[in-house]
Amino acid sequence: MRTALLAASAALALTLPLSAEEAAKPAALAPSEIVAAAPKSDWKAIPAEDLLVMTLAPDADGKPRTVVIQLMPAPFSQGWIHNIRLFARAKWYDGISVNRVQDNYVTQWGDPNYDNPEATGKPKSLPKGLKVMTEAEYIAGVEHIMLVGGDRYPVSHEPHIDHLNRDDAFASATGFVSGWPVGVQLDRGRFSKRDLRKDPQLEVRSAWPTHCYGMVGVGRNYSPDTGSGAELYTVIGHAPRHLDRNIALVGRVIEGMHHLSSLPRGSGDLGFYTAEEAAKRTPILTVRVASDLPAGEQPRFEYLSTDSATFDRYAEAIANRRDPFFIVPAGRADICNVKVPVRRVAQ
Amino acid sequence: MRTALLAASAALALTLPLSAEEAAKPAALAPSEIVAAAPKSDWKAIPAEDLLVMTLAPDADGKPRTVVIQLMPAPFSQGWIHNIRLFARAKWYDGISVNRVQDNYVTQWGDPNYDNPEATGKPKSLPKGLKVMTEAEYIAGVEHIMLVGGDRYPVSHEPHIDHLNRDDAFASATGFVSGWPVGVQLDRGRFSKRDLRKDPQLEVRSAWPTHCYGMVGVGRNYSPDTGSGAELYTVIGHAPRHLDRNIALVGRVIEGMHHLSSLPRGSGDLGFYTAEEAAKRTPILTVRVASDLPAGEQPRFEYLSTDSATFDRYAEAIANRRDPFFIVPAGRADICNVKVPVRRVAQ
Repeated sequence: MRTALLAASAALALTLPLSAEEAAKPAALAPSEIVAAAPKSDWKAIPAEDLLVMTLAPDADGKPRTVVIQLMPAPFSQGWIHNIRLFARAKWYDGISVNRVQDNYVTQWGDPNYDNPEATGKPKSLPKGLKVMTEAEYIAGVEHIMLVGGDRYPVSHEPHIDHLNRDDAFASATGFVSGWPVGVQLDRGRFSKRDLRKDPQLEVRSAWPTHCYGMVGVGRNYSPDTGSGAELYTVIGHAPRHLDRNIALVGRVIEGMHHLSSLPRGSGDLGFYTAEEAAKRTPILTVRVASDLPAGEQPRFEYLSTDSATFDRYAEAIANRRDPFFIVPAGRADICNVKVPVRRVAQ
Repeated sequence: MRTALLAASAALALTLPLSAEEAAKPAALAPSEIVAAAPKSDWKAIPAEDLLVMTLAPDADGKPRTVVIQLMPAPFSQGWIHNIRLFARAKWYDGISVNRVQDNYVTQWGDPNYDNPEATGKPKSLPKGLKVMTEAEYIAGVEHIMLVGGDRYPVSHEPHIDHLNRDDAFASATGFVSGWPVGVQLDRGRFSKRDLRKDPQLEVRSAWPTHCYGMVGVGRNYSPDTGSGAELYTVIGHAPRHLDRNIALVGRVIEGMHHLSSLPRGSGDLGFYTAEEAAKRTPILTVRVASDLPAGEQPRFEYLSTDSATFDRYAEAIANRRDPFFIVPAGRADICNVKVPVRRVAQ
């Protein structure tokens, strides 16, 4: 009983909109059932400009393999995302391959002859018009995301941060911005002591995307290089959150993740396929921005708004599993366990 | 600068033995390099009785596939582990298969005809002598693990908890017990207010293993069933910590994990292979307790003592990456990012 009570109250940290009574009430629905019951208005369309369709070579049985990646909206990583659309539109990605699969870490694709310890040929030349980003751009700073509490300093910038949770192991807090998981830096030092006495809620928040399973990032060399977008990777194991703020995250795999996570692991350093294993490199046939496809071929996806009542219930249910299999609810969940629901819809 | 200072001080929560000065000092070594430099005395031998050698059918190229699992020591899950040795010695596991691979969740093996939505035949009968465990045994209670602070109540039970870290998203703290990651329940309610006033450090701690990548658990039916050990699974994605205290964990994969994590995902409910996909079920040829093998064939492994100075430095370096690739140290790490090093040694 002690545990159950603790769990219900701890859940409130994650899910402020629920009352203590509501949180303590047994609910039969699993998180997936809560999502299935969401009203249409809680889902938001993902712009076709933000979808990348990556076609791998067919598998050993001849079956097609397609991976769909959702790119992030502003204020995150827009310089790298500009480059990624440019690479796709220049068809630069066509003919590259998956060169690295490191267990419990990442699957990485790019030019097999670029910065690969197992390269055997010359790297491709890069297209013109690429932007060069600074390390400061790994974080969406207060000029973009600024939430300050109290009456005197209302929310001053959109987008805002949903589900602020101060129990994170890596950041002072976590939350969601426009459907994306973020780490949050809370900063009260920008206000005077007098202001803070008058308004104890005051804080400035900056945010950055978190390395959860399926997130897509930009490979880079040593600092100050920040990568161009020519090399991309996705997380295939436990969230390597120590990479947060050290590499640019640009999106997430929203369909076909298993095509990247179940590939054979490379036996070279860092999981690169060795020259002898070159046949294991999965060829990438094409990468297209969905908005460039003929209208009838554009895939359509929606995500569950992290600002919706359904998402509140979904996040609370993940932290407090009450569906029949569970006996002890955790009471909490980490940011990477609360996967934002995404669904394909009819064209 | 602000971030770097914050990181160095936050690291202390995880790594008490280091002074603030030491933690702030730049160190060139990566975590793996710290482990490689460990003195022999920081490594502990794993008893052959605690090693399971699981031989899968060869892969598509005819290459052998062997997985080695380390079973947990007391006080964790010993009833189930008794059963697992019994299943292995009865050769009951020989001829079963991997029946379920769910992306970002688990790979599960057992009798393909037992409790499988896609079963096509009759289940095998179980061997005699199996123990039946209660749900209380998911947690190693205060009768086994009890750490109380202060002078009046010294540590009263071994094993103790290393690296207590109160920044966890799921438990009131985490730590390591004899080389295993655990969630920890802190309980001050067992002491009188008077005792707590006299000794503010007082607390009782119980602990349970955590569902990190590669951990091995016991499949079960609905509560109050706790599973026998006939069905086992391993975590192949982000740590599903909501399963902690809800299922028995019994060990971890210490060699050959990629043979289980890179298998094709099942397309049935929960990632089970459908009847049409039965050919994808990887056959398990044999499972043996290493101590039952001929002396010359027994694999030997060691783990890095979580009570050693090397482990202190290793955990601190994971929380504060200063090797050349990194620009912003996280300052902390979650329990599943601090993987306990295990190595194979000559026979």
